[in-house]
Amino acid sequence: MTTPKYKLYSFHPSGNCYKLRLVLSQLALPYELVVVDILDQESRTAAFLAMNPNGRVPLLQVNDRYLPESNAGLWYLAQGSNLIPSDSFERAQVLEWLFFEQYSHEPNIATVRYWVSILNAESDYADDIIEKRIKGYAALDVMETHLSSQPYFVGQRYSIADIALYGYTHVAHEGGFDLSPYPHITRWIRAIEAQPNYLTIKAEP
Amino acid sequence: MTTPKYKLYSFHPSGNCYKLRLVLSQLALPYELVVVDILDQESRTAAFLAMNPNGRVPLLQVNDRYLPESNAGLWYLAQGSNLIPSDSFERAQVLEWLFFEQYSHEPNIATVRYWVSILNAESDYADDIIEKRIKGYAALDVMETHLSSQPYFVGQRYSIADIALYGYTHVAHEGGFDLSPYPHITRWIRAIEAQPNYLTIKAEP
Repeated sequence: MTTPKYKLYSFHPSGNCYKLRLVLSQLALPYELVVVDILDQESRTAAFLAMNPNGRVPLLQVNDRYLPESNAGLWYLAQGSNLIPSDSFERAQVLEWLFFEQYSHEPNIATVRYWVSILNAESDYADDIIEKRIKGYAALDVMETHLSSQPYFVGQRYSIADIALYGYTHVAHEGGFDLSPYPHITRWIRAIEAQPNYLTIKAEP
Repeated sequence: MTTPKYKLYSFHPSGNCYKLRLVLSQLALPYELVVVDILDQESRTAAFLAMNPNGRVPLLQVNDRYLPESNAGLWYLAQGSNLIPSDSFERAQVLEWLFFEQYSHEPNIATVRYWVSILNAESDYADDIIEKRIKGYAALDVMETHLSSQPYFVGQRYSIADIALYGYTHVAHEGGFDLSPYPHITRWIRAIEAQPNYLTIKAEP
């Protein structure tokens, strides 16, 4: 089987895009990076919408096919690797945390970071930020409880569930979230940063 | 292999819970239904939070283990059935649409229906409803575009991607969404309702 040709359409500060850069690094998969400046509406051009009608990054290209949604990309790339458990219930638990991340975590923690540190528009979103900080801390509470009895999210070992949740958790302070009351999350962040082929969100691939 | 014992913690009007009742019906899997009245805070009791620290339904119990997140449940139950494609890229495309549903569709379309038809509190949420209707129609536009060239969401055949998106799309009118400008979605809804072992959201299991 020929190795697929991967291309990643990515906005560098995005945690969703970073998740895929991180898994590509950890799996040592070569790929071409295409920078998409979402602040300049580059994900809403006709050419981009023809590849992803939902107009979002990251977008993973595999040969001539396109796969939107960061967590679908994590799953696709990590199939058959040790970043996805082999047990079927544990695989479903990985998906559980990927859905938790996109529903309960990212819309709160990532969105506040975007307003505060990327748009530099904290005052424009003051009321929304109050509400989203409450919901973001609730998501962090769920993570802290879970990590209080186990090292990683699923099956006692590092998986794409950890990569997905790490993406925006480790930069949550850029949205004003204080992680100091979360010792288990803090320990888990350090454990991820010690994994082989780790790279930071700012690193060029 | 013994068949697992399934228990579903479910709030009947919820489309997320309905997705799992529908797939359980279509796969002819027996299960026990436990009614959880979220309007009476029954998903926030200490007993429920011990099963799902995120305090949400549906919650699928498989023997003595708990699996939160409706779309993780769809994946777990449908594994090995004809409701999930066997091709690895198509499997990732199923996940793509499951994440689209939870990120771009449900928070808009389901939430407006909840405010309007379940809480009967449309006037309390008037500003939020305006914003969420715009985003909900954008999600419907993405679906319509996709369905304009194919009968179902992935691989030319019915899958859990269709079940996930059908859950709240077919009751979108209860949140004031008008599906009449969406002929492809309307045709797709009819095709789902013609599937074997279909059951309506109001049907008791």
